[in-house]
Amino acid sequence: MLDSVPCLTRLTAQLRRFPGIGEKTAQRLAFFVLKQPRAQVAQLAQALLDVKDKVVFCSRCFHVTEQDPCPFCRAPERDDGLLCVVEQSQDLLAIERGGGYRGRYHVLHGVLSPLDGVGPAELNIPQLVQRVEQGEVRELIVATNFTMEGEATALYLRRLLQRPGLRLTRLAHGVPTGGNLEYLDESTLSGAMARRYEL
Amino acid sequence: MLDSVPCLTRLTAQLRRFPGIGEKTAQRLAFFVLKQPRAQVAQLAQALLDVKDKVVFCSRCFHVTEQDPCPFCRAPERDDGLLCVVEQSQDLLAIERGGGYRGRYHVLHGVLSPLDGVGPAELNIPQLVQRVEQGEVRELIVATNFTMEGEATALYLRRLLQRPGLRLTRLAHGVPTGGNLEYLDESTLSGAMARRYEL
Repeated sequence: MLDSVPCLTRLTAQLRRFPGIGEKTAQRLAFFVLKQPRAQVAQLAQALLDVKDKVVFCSRCFHVTEQDPCPFCRAPERDDGLLCVVEQSQDLLAIERGGGYRGRYHVLHGVLSPLDGVGPAELNIPQLVQRVEQGEVRELIVATNFTMEGEATALYLRRLLQRPGLRLTRLAHGVPTGGNLEYLDESTLSGAMARRYEL
Repeated sequence: MLDSVPCLTRLTAQLRRFPGIGEKTAQRLAFFVLKQPRAQVAQLAQALLDVKDKVVFCSRCFHVTEQDPCPFCRAPERDDGLLCVVEQSQDLLAIERGGGYRGRYHVLHGVLSPLDGVGPAELNIPQLVQRVEQGEVRELIVATNFTMEGEATALYLRRLLQRPGLRLTRLAHGVPTGGNLEYLDESTLSGAMARRYEL
């Protein structure tokens, strides 16, 4: 229906590719762009290209960074004995927001999914094994998500990395802060009941 | 928290400016961009700039277009005697999607809002008066939204444009197709009752 304005059609189609952006929203955003000052739009266009041109993956932990190794790998005050494995960079950022963790990270960039052709090699797991084998790591915290795939990946890592002197841990699993029992899923709730602790 | 990756922070901030895009979504979109092929991102960046560089407002009806006058003003088969006034280009497109209208358009790009400094001049209303005064228009269909502001603008236009030989109309107002009386607002429902018609 925007046939008469190919530019807007093209931009709408491009925005439509974003996750969670439907046809209507894409069109609304395209019209918003039209009303922005050109300098503003140019900044957005540049920011898009910069992300592709300047952001790389840290060669040690695979977190996104503009400087390799990344700040988390470089920081001298972080404990090399603690290694936290996460599915994606956003999870690392969430843990940092939470605060209280002062170890290193390893970002898998996904979960095991043999049907989709995602095996250990696609997840930087060989590099994880190598880091563990250098012997500095005392504790490996497997912080993959508590989803089917995240749990399966955690179990795989446990089997792969079990060795004397290495503690393998997983984040605590239970009712979240502000959690309302009424609305909580059954799996969390039954698990939290089973793992109840002394008050 | 993305401090360590200024590019991503910048892109997130830029995306955050879009209507309906919050901090979380902006971050998710920024990471999505990071995972796209560069060519794809370059296309999006180009599409953004193209919209600013190639799209203009039609000098006759003010619809967005790449060619002035716009296709709706150029089409020789459209009836010059019918003029439909809409708030924005998206409304014009919605009416075209609906089909059945073969007249011309006039896009206000807003509604009257004295408190925000939006008066007739900001809404291409002098140009609308001029079009009406050329005498070709038999019927002016005021298709502003059925909101407080849209209704006020419609009333203003009625007062301004009333003249002998010109029919001023407004879109029918009532229960929409698929409308569920239970969930319909009171104003629509009481109005639809008052304007009920013979079955």
